[in-house]
Amino acid sequence: MLLEKLTIQGLTALYRAGEASPVTVIEAVLHRLARNPDKAVWISTVPAEKLRAEAEALAKGGYDPSKPLWGIPFAAKDNIDAAGLPTTAACPAFAYDPGADSTVVAKLRAAGAILIGKTNLDQFATGLNGTRSPYGAPRCVFNEEYVSGGSSSGSAVAVARGQVAFALGTDTAGSGRVPAAFNDLVGIKPSKGLLSTSGAVPACRSQDCITVLAHSIADGDLVRRVAEGFDEADPFSRAPQTRPLRLEGFRFGVLTGAEKEFLGDKAAEALYDAAVERLAGLGGTAVPFDYKPLRECAHLLYGGPWVAERLAAIEEFVEGQADAMDPTVRAIIKGAEGKTAVEAFVGQYALAFYAQEMPRLWGELDILLLPTTPTIYKVADMLADPVRLNSNLGRYTNFVNLLDCAAVAVPAGFRPNGLPFGVTLVGPAFTDNGLAMLADRLHNDGNVTMTPQIPADWLPIIVVGAHLSGMPLNHELTSVGGIRLGEVRTAPDYRFYALAGTVPPKPGLVRDPGFAGPGIVAEEWALPPAAFGAFVARIPAPLGVGKVTLDDGRQVTCFLCESHALQGATEITGFGGWRAYRASLA
Amino acid sequence: MLLEKLTIQGLTALYRAGEASPVTVIEAVLHRLARNPDKAVWISTVPAEKLRAEAEALAKGGYDPSKPLWGIPFAAKDNIDAAGLPTTAACPAFAYDPGADSTVVAKLRAAGAILIGKTNLDQFATGLNGTRSPYGAPRCVFNEEYVSGGSSSGSAVAVARGQVAFALGTDTAGSGRVPAAFNDLVGIKPSKGLLSTSGAVPACRSQDCITVLAHSIADGDLVRRVAEGFDEADPFSRAPQTRPLRLEGFRFGVLTGAEKEFLGDKAAEALYDAAVERLAGLGGTAVPFDYKPLRECAHLLYGGPWVAERLAAIEEFVEGQADAMDPTVRAIIKGAEGKTAVEAFVGQYALAFYAQEMPRLWGELDILLLPTTPTIYKVADMLADPVRLNSNLGRYTNFVNLLDCAAVAVPAGFRPNGLPFGVTLVGPAFTDNGLAMLADRLHNDGNVTMTPQIPADWLPIIVVGAHLSGMPLNHELTSVGGIRLGEVRTAPDYRFYALAGTVPPKPGLVRDPGFAGPGIVAEEWALPPAAFGAFVARIPAPLGVGKVTLDDGRQVTCFLCESHALQGATEITGFGGWRAYRASLA
Repeated sequence: MLLEKLTIQGLTALYRAGEASPVTVIEAVLHRLARNPDKAVWISTVPAEKLRAEAEALAKGGYDPSKPLWGIPFAAKDNIDAAGLPTTAACPAFAYDPGADSTVVAKLRAAGAILIGKTNLDQFATGLNGTRSPYGAPRCVFNEEYVSGGSSSGSAVAVARGQVAFALGTDTAGSGRVPAAFNDLVGIKPSKGLLSTSGAVPACRSQDCITVLAHSIADGDLVRRVAEGFDEADPFSRAPQTRPLRLEGFRFGVLTGAEKEFLGDKAAEALYDAAVERLAGLGGTAVPFDYKPLRECAHLLYGGPWVAERLAAIEEFVEGQADAMDPTVRAIIKGAEGKTAVEAFVGQYALAFYAQEMPRLWGELDILLLPTTPTIYKVADMLADPVRLNSNLGRYTNFVNLLDCAAVAVPAGFRPNGLPFGVTLVGPAFTDNGLAMLADRLHNDGNVTMTPQIPADWLPIIVVGAHLSGMPLNHELTSVGGIRLGEVRTAPDYRFYALAGTVPPKPGLVRDPGFAGPGIVAEEWALPPAAFGAFVARIPAPLGVGKVTLDDGRQVTCFLCESHALQGATEITGFGGWRAYRASLA
Repeated sequence: MLLEKLTIQGLTALYRAGEASPVTVIEAVLHRLARNPDKAVWISTVPAEKLRAEAEALAKGGYDPSKPLWGIPFAAKDNIDAAGLPTTAACPAFAYDPGADSTVVAKLRAAGAILIGKTNLDQFATGLNGTRSPYGAPRCVFNEEYVSGGSSSGSAVAVARGQVAFALGTDTAGSGRVPAAFNDLVGIKPSKGLLSTSGAVPACRSQDCITVLAHSIADGDLVRRVAEGFDEADPFSRAPQTRPLRLEGFRFGVLTGAEKEFLGDKAAEALYDAAVERLAGLGGTAVPFDYKPLRECAHLLYGGPWVAERLAAIEEFVEGQADAMDPTVRAIIKGAEGKTAVEAFVGQYALAFYAQEMPRLWGELDILLLPTTPTIYKVADMLADPVRLNSNLGRYTNFVNLLDCAAVAVPAGFRPNGLPFGVTLVGPAFTDNGLAMLADRLHNDGNVTMTPQIPADWLPIIVVGAHLSGMPLNHELTSVGGIRLGEVRTAPDYRFYALAGTVPPKPGLVRDPGFAGPGIVAEEWALPPAAFGAFVARIPAPLGVGKVTLDDGRQVTCFLCESHALQGATEITGFGGWRAYRASLA
């Protein structure tokens, strides 16, 4: 039986014990892809037959402990080449057939990992929010009204949804960390040059990193170690080395005063304060420091000449086909056209000025503990103010690559509204190993609820049809602050029907005591009491609410159906759920 | 009695023994400045009274062994600020009063050194030849027809002429090494960031280094150690560190095949080959390596975007007063005006590509042994083809700063035509200490004549008047390849006269046996036999040649004067020489 979240540790344990095979895992992945409610996540996937053949070939040889990622399904952000799939960088007109794997994808495949497909991104990796793509905007998996974060948007959502165990992202300004924070994942942002960028579409080539999104530090860090290594095809590649970090008695820098800014998000601030206390409890000393120079340095990435690197990466394309670009991305990248070489060097002098301060900072502090982002935004708000709000998201991430730091973004609990919050541990280059160890302890210290915190008075409700995530009426839950608690299944004695003549199409769930069916897949949500009341009051006949029994024995409020409505209805129990039934009609 | 060459070791020994005082040294320096035949060397000097007062104050306190440069006269290239003197960068319209010392000048003064003045340079340090200055072109001290090398032209000549013990230069493309090679000096080009560039007019700010020109490695390296140190006022400053070099059993890269290019200068090639053998004799193994990637990288400095740094440094000045610039320098710097930020980054990608190869090179080789320049040029040839010939001079120096190397240029003997040749030891950043040790051994191994090698059949001649260096007829010696062997003095029994009605003015030297005069200062030159014959044949009455007795007892061919010509002549024996007499008329 597969876990809802795919993890490398979990899958490897099953493989090792002979309790699962890549064949069954790939079937589960294909199933999860098919039921994916967020069409914006994947830009392309490997054909099912090819995946099955690959899994079978792997299974035939038997589990191979020498391959640390044996049978692990993963995704690659679609600005990273993988043989057999086009690379689009989320710009269809830019798409090309790479012919060969990028260096990192080749290394992961050699370690036994199975590439499932290529994920959506803010076009040309220019953005931190996930809305800048003609393939659509992936949504935060905890609330579809909110952005997924970007630019590694699809990679984060694919992992968070359990479709793959890990995904590759890229990170110039925070693109591998922000979507981790918004989807309750870890985001490993290695030291610059540690993972080859050969075969990746450059954003800012001198600043780009390949990153790993995963559920745990153990998983993410394992992938980082497999993928790293000097690569002469990447002029910015650096040989791995280790700068030790003190794991006891370490001093960590924390925000203070006017620089401790959450843009009004008090819940985020409380979770940051809690993270500071938790890290102190793990043997560190919190040391307030002046974030201002780092914040000022961060402005250079878009305010300075580095945006010219984005133009350099795709100059010919911009000249010929700018109309095919996302308008926000186009405006940003074309903004570099007037910039001079003199400005480029003057910007680098400014950076050198900030960089020179870093040895002193690292003399006083072992690491920094920062919010990954100050807050999170709704998709609608982001679209209305796409540049300013995006900049806000990068407040604590933009400086990291410019100043040659390693970073690990790690979940740090949930806001009362059910949205996750993340913090990032930042250290000087080549502290990757030490950062991972500290981040792992912080992630697993047990002193913060690492699942959505539902206020005690909120009320759960099971939805089975048009209110499921991604379905036409789902907004009735999300618009009142509803929180998706997860996927559940009814007890076996329920039958399921597609009701006739309903708009939008709706199902009916009916208990048939003694019936031994497959159980019906549903989603559990929680609503504030007032919203719950209003929601129930709006439900039109022949539907209503009652209690349903789940396969775990719990009884929870659920949509039920009056029996008369079954006239003309089609029994669809065999599909096991509304999503699978609807997919069969497509 | 002062040495003709001022050295730190020599002066310090005299001070320590109480055999000299800064007061006498400064008087000697003032004397040497006054008799300087090369007006283009100094742009400004500290007034004599101030120098005397400084020397007296120093002498009053007695020799202070805690000050490693106590009483040592030095010069600073005029793109390095020194309080009390304007900084011109060899562009009068650009001149400003710096108000304060640059970091390095302040450190040297704090160590007891006495700044004599500011030296000429290729304007804005843009050049490797020394002709690009409205203050004139300093000349190679061994042959005035040849360039001094640049851009630290005046600094090199001031040291070579014995006016100061050492001088500060700067070096972006080779400016601290080329003039060392052309004037028989060592040129210490420290690792980037080791000596603060704060208070220096930038050339390419990301690549600039402050350098030291001196007679010996011991002297130059001492100055480097006094001047180095982290300086937060310089954003490119780096804290000193030491990367060890093997001093026995080391492998040094040498030119080979098509990359071993001396542009037809066979004598230079022979001296390079000899240096390779000599370094091998000191415990190293010569390893031919492919210089091509380094040469290609070197092209980036002027062919790539870095020229925009030169514009960035003085952009406002170029906009307002381009007419006040040297035309060649103006053309180079204004060439950056069209360059875009995209080009700047693309150039940096190219550099990163080359830089990435360096760890592999340094894995195979401990150091490189390269010619400092492939050849040397006459001033007239340089002026006729100022860009191409200048580029030739940088063939083996331009890559060094771009690829973050340390370098020490060291004399490597003289060509048969009396012009010096130099080689440069290059190592990765922070091998400064090891490079200095190896370079010192190479400089002092005794296996090459470190004074001009005069072919056995060449003929010496003493000149006392219009043929002296810098005088109107000196070209009659230099144009036939004459080599200045040095300054000499006649025995005491010579009288000296200014002849009446000669054009250009000429003196007459007449022996008066038993007379005990001061002896007459003269210069000893050597000429090829055929040239000697033609030269003598051209001498007009009442002059002729005979033998003169020098104060060292030697008898050498010399200009003499028929006695009848003394009618109407003025005896000037008391001036001790033609130069002092002519100076008295000015």
